[in-house]
Amino acid sequence: MRVAIIGLGRMGAGIARRLMRAGHDVIAYDVSEEAVARLVEQGGMGAGSLEEAASRFTGQKVFWVMLPAGEITETTIARLADLAAPGDIVIDGGNSFYKDDIRRAKALAAKDIAYVDVGTSGGVWGLDRGFSMMVGGPDDAVATIDPILDALAPGLGTIERTADRAADADPRPEKGYIHAGPAGAGHFVKMVHNGIEYGMMAAFAEGFDILKSKASDKLPEDERFDLNLPDIAEAWRRGSVVSSWLLDLTAEALARDHALDGFAGNVADSGEGRWTVEAAMEEAVPAYVLSAALYARYRSRSETTFGDKVLSAMRFGFGGHVEGK
Amino acid sequence: MRVAIIGLGRMGAGIARRLMRAGHDVIAYDVSEEAVARLVEQGGMGAGSLEEAASRFTGQKVFWVMLPAGEITETTIARLADLAAPGDIVIDGGNSFYKDDIRRAKALAAKDIAYVDVGTSGGVWGLDRGFSMMVGGPDDAVATIDPILDALAPGLGTIERTADRAADADPRPEKGYIHAGPAGAGHFVKMVHNGIEYGMMAAFAEGFDILKSKASDKLPEDERFDLNLPDIAEAWRRGSVVSSWLLDLTAEALARDHALDGFAGNVADSGEGRWTVEAAMEEAVPAYVLSAALYARYRSRSETTFGDKVLSAMRFGFGGHVEGK
Amino acid sequence: MRVAIIGLGRMGAGIARRLMRAGHDVIAYDVSEEAVARLVEQGGMGAGSLEEAASRFTGQKVFWVMLPAGEITETTIARLADLAAPGDIVIDGGNSFYKDDIRRAKALAAKDIAYVDVGTSGGVWGLDRGFSMMVGGPDDAVATIDPILDALAPGLGTIERTADRAADADPRPEKGYIHAGPAGAGHFVKMVHNGIEYGMMAAFAEGFDILKSKASDKLPEDERFDLNLPDIAEAWRRGSVVSSWLLDLTAEALARDHALDGFAGNVADSGEGRWTVEAAMEEAVPAYVLSAALYARYRSRSETTFGDKVLSAMRFGFGGHVEGK
Amino acid sequence: MRVAIIGLGRMGAGIARRLMRAGHDVIAYDVSEEAVARLVEQGGMGAGSLEEAASRFTGQKVFWVMLPAGEITETTIARLADLAAPGDIVIDGGNSFYKDDIRRAKALAAKDIAYVDVGTSGGVWGLDRGFSMMVGGPDDAVATIDPILDALAPGLGTIERTADRAADADPRPEKGYIHAGPAGAGHFVKMVHNGIEYGMMAAFAEGFDILKSKASDKLPEDERFDLNLPDIAEAWRRGSVVSSWLLDLTAEALARDHALDGFAGNVADSGEGRWTVEAAMEEAVPAYVLSAALYARYRSRSETTFGDKVLSAMRFGFGGHVEGK
Repeated sequence: MRVAIIGLGRMGAGIARRLMRAGHDVIAYDVSEEAVARLVEQGGMGAGSLEEAASRFTGQKVFWVMLPAGEITETTIARLADLAAPGDIVIDGGNSFYKDDIRRAKALAAKDIAYVDVGTSGGVWGLDRGFSMMVGGPDDAVATIDPILDALAPGLGTIERTADRAADADPRPEKGYIHAGPAGAGHFVKMVHNGIEYGMMAAFAEGFDILKSKASDKLPEDERFDLNLPDIAEAWRRGSVVSSWLLDLTAEALARDHALDGFAGNVADSGEGRWTVEAAMEEAVPAYVLSAALYARYRSRSETTFGDKVLSAMRFGFGGHVEGK
Repeated sequence: MRVAIIGLGRMGAGIARRLMRAGHDVIAYDVSEEAVARLVEQGGMGAGSLEEAASRFTGQKVFWVMLPAGEITETTIARLADLAAPGDIVIDGGNSFYKDDIRRAKALAAKDIAYVDVGTSGGVWGLDRGFSMMVGGPDDAVATIDPILDALAPGLGTIERTADRAADADPRPEKGYIHAGPAGAGHFVKMVHNGIEYGMMAAFAEGFDILKSKASDKLPEDERFDLNLPDIAEAWRRGSVVSSWLLDLTAEALARDHALDGFAGNVADSGEGRWTVEAAMEEAVPAYVLSAALYARYRSRSETTFGDKVLSAMRFGFGGHVEGK
Repeated sequence: MRVAIIGLGRMGAGIARRLMRAGHDVIAYDVSEEAVARLVEQGGMGAGSLEEAASRFTGQKVFWVMLPAGEITETTIARLADLAAPGDIVIDGGNSFYKDDIRRAKALAAKDIAYVDVGTSGGVWGLDRGFSMMVGGPDDAVATIDPILDALAPGLGTIERTADRAADADPRPEKGYIHAGPAGAGHFVKMVHNGIEYGMMAAFAEGFDILKSKASDKLPEDERFDLNLPDIAEAWRRGSVVSSWLLDLTAEALARDHALDGFAGNVADSGEGRWTVEAAMEEAVPAYVLSAALYARYRSRSETTFGDKVLSAMRFGFGGHVEGK
Repeated sequence: MRVAIIGLGRMGAGIARRLMRAGHDVIAYDVSEEAVARLVEQGGMGAGSLEEAASRFTGQKVFWVMLPAGEITETTIARLADLAAPGDIVIDGGNSFYKDDIRRAKALAAKDIAYVDVGTSGGVWGLDRGFSMMVGGPDDAVATIDPILDALAPGLGTIERTADRAADADPRPEKGYIHAGPAGAGHFVKMVHNGIEYGMMAAFAEGFDILKSKASDKLPEDERFDLNLPDIAEAWRRGSVVSSWLLDLTAEALARDHALDGFAGNVADSGEGRWTVEAAMEEAVPAYVLSAALYARYRSRSETTFGDKVLSAMRFGFGGHVEGK
């Protein structure tokens, strides 16, 4: 089928290419003409504007917006709503906040335009491994774009099927995507996915730190182990309880750079981690681990905090303790 | 080669059987005659006592102790040390605290007996998938038992090899086991492995709780999603960043029992989680996530805590707040 | 001066009475006629409606709204804005979210009505001890109501003055109130105050739990201490580093009920704890302790969580572990 | 009565002086002759060795050891045990681990020497405010040294008595000290006291950080407040729920140095915080807040952690994310 990809960054270009590989018609638009040109070389139809992208459709139009969450996604969707006709579909495949989806879906529904939110995981690997997708929106629109989703998804692959999965269960999840519910549900599930991701990453980070620090010269000499981290990560990849894709990536990074000297340790965070904590608070779910994982990222970006100074000031106050290092 | 397995519980029996499948000679001992009989049926040599197990060797003796950590492992190893001759090898494959390994290794070394600690992961699945093993001990003893470790390990299998792994790197980690260092190093690495496991499990637990509670009637009706958890877990298994064995197991459990009604939610913890936190404290590594994961298990086992009552008492004290539900 | 108190609950009535004690004229309004009657007995002017309350002023009107945060505060302030004339002052003394203050202040400023937010701490004790107040709003309006704030505040009292406090510093904080900044700043500071309060309370809760559980029969008999908690709390009240009002209240509660059997341990939380975590996330401040304190309250209100069941399901999955208690 | 103070550091000297002020005879010993000389000037009896200190007694000897926990306390107590006769008393007033107390008490009891552990809080302020003391040991020995404890304690002072405290309750806690139980109980209670102290300090640290960071230029300009921290701390000292000695000290520090520029924010931790977490783990008490408070101190002492690098390496692995600042 024909779909317009709006935004040809790393993820958008990957999606466009994976769709073309599967035989779909891709209309490619980006503010960067160079990005458009690259897609055209690979078989896409280029568009120099949203209007042109829209004009490339004959019947039902399907727009897949793949832009950074926030302002730019917001205005682009508003403009597409103007270009769209009743029965058309606008997909937000970025990392929007699910409450924004709910609001937008309502606005577009008033014009009889379907809004579908697709939380997309898979990063730079998606082009080859396929994208894991969590989808929210009306049944008929999601059914309409199923060929696209199917093409983008990883598919069954070599991964063993889940024992005891009901024979009459929805076949889509086994291929790596899910219609999670009405508008917003897709990004909500993706948001929690990322929250879990933060927690798992923090678990590995703390664990490898404990392994590494066992060689620290702050420990008595006879209590130290000088452990081979690349080998440990490698050994755990097969048969251990912590085997996972994140471990695979860690093993790879450590194989290349045993002490990870190429990294400074300033860790960014995107909206999803914060929104997951907000959702936990709205639901009164204790999310100790997911919050701590988020905070570790904040902390990683400062050399010190004002809070630390407050602690030192108090210790000096009650005990006359002078700071050491 | 010939090895005596001391302790034929779930893990010990699995190890014995996997070794026999690979053509090794297994001497099987357990306090339960029935457990011994079962192994004999499967091709093992039975032994009615440690003495008899020892007598079944002609040359170098190799004992693999697979008992619950603590008292029983301690006394068994002491008795084996008496039955062993210089050059023999005693392996502790259980979940001992690594500082106990260091102490025991020293005691056995005085009699020229080699002590090897093997942290073993893989649970009930090890028999078929192979066991992930982290080994501590002297080079020559570990080299001697390599055929056993190799037989127990998962092997390369179908898992992709790590890009950029050095061509001259130790080949054992790729097969799923590692000689981590001197006595204690095996169980130390296994301990941290379990600490990470706790953290990853907690990340999934919190995340699925947030997904589940999005349908809670404590939320305004128009803010709820009634999400299909088995399908979400399934969808994440392919292509997502959180794909992992723990997720596979979660998907399986949810497929069988969508609301996990078969579980009460009382979660046990073994020594490894606590020891990991102790190690973090000795090394001054901030282990927020691993500690929180441990505490969630403690908390899961009480309906309320005295601490909660202290909070209520204070709130009543300063604000006259009376407890609701 | 004359002020109308809108809302005569525990806090509102306390404020009205403390103001009357100091010689101020209080117009008292509440939906409950009984509450109004009680204040009239104590010397207030009753009002049967907001309109009547407004009509009791001759010149500049000052309304102090003391209602639960949310809907009722919102609509009441909107109605007062209609009853007010340019130059009048509307005070929100409740627990509003500071962003609501900023929005409301802007709306009222358009009509030349001043909006002042007063975060008020002191609970049921405020009537006698005085209220700690954190105030946001325009300088002139805050100056106008200074006599009221001064009357409500604790004053210097017997508490020692802070060494090295600048001689020319604002004298109000020493009396227990502060003009923190423009609209919203008062409730923002109050919000963080409550966040800190949650953290301190949790520190005591965990500590007393550790003291109490040292007598647990889960510990080996020779490792137990049967500690006298009322005496410990009492001993700490003088000279220790943890001496504080919260400790005083804990000592009092324990004196009355050594095991706090009168409490079930279901701990409510109000908006401030959550908003503090939200503020921390907006500022990227790691707020591990304040979040954990909040989550402990959520957790206290459930016997079990779905997350705990997920943990049990995983443990059964990889290790065949069956739940105990 | 007569008592030998062994160790004349900040705390030891303060104790010696407060005892002399109360009319007790103090034998003063320290490895530093200068420290001894200073005490002699103030009215103490100097001693050049433990032996000389012992020889200054005629009847029952009472030694108060006030040395850093660990090796030096251990060996000093062993030497005093040799110098002591049946019926004598050895007090450890330092910060020993309570399990060391239990062990030492047993060893000394075999020689009929009483061992008393005194956890002492009050820091540099104790000389004037009195010391808060938590005491473990046999009833008769604790009764014998009661005049000393009474002299060191703060006494009732101006602090209001606890409502509803039983008329027949032990009068000592109201004066600021407690006989908590047998040997070890004193230091156990002191340990938990310090654990709570860590938690309270962290609550203030995080809260003031959130206040301070509200002026951060990372926030949109119209969402900032530039708050006066010294004034806020001051305002909270009277009438607020968070009023406490730690807040008094914070107010003092902020009054002197508004931005706490005199501190680098490297926060040390002593044994008590770690031991409290260990105790929590032995008792299976969830100690989220006390652990997090401890970890914040570890984290404060490093600019980055290996864990942070692991996070960055993973993010680069799955998303091609390059670290910013």
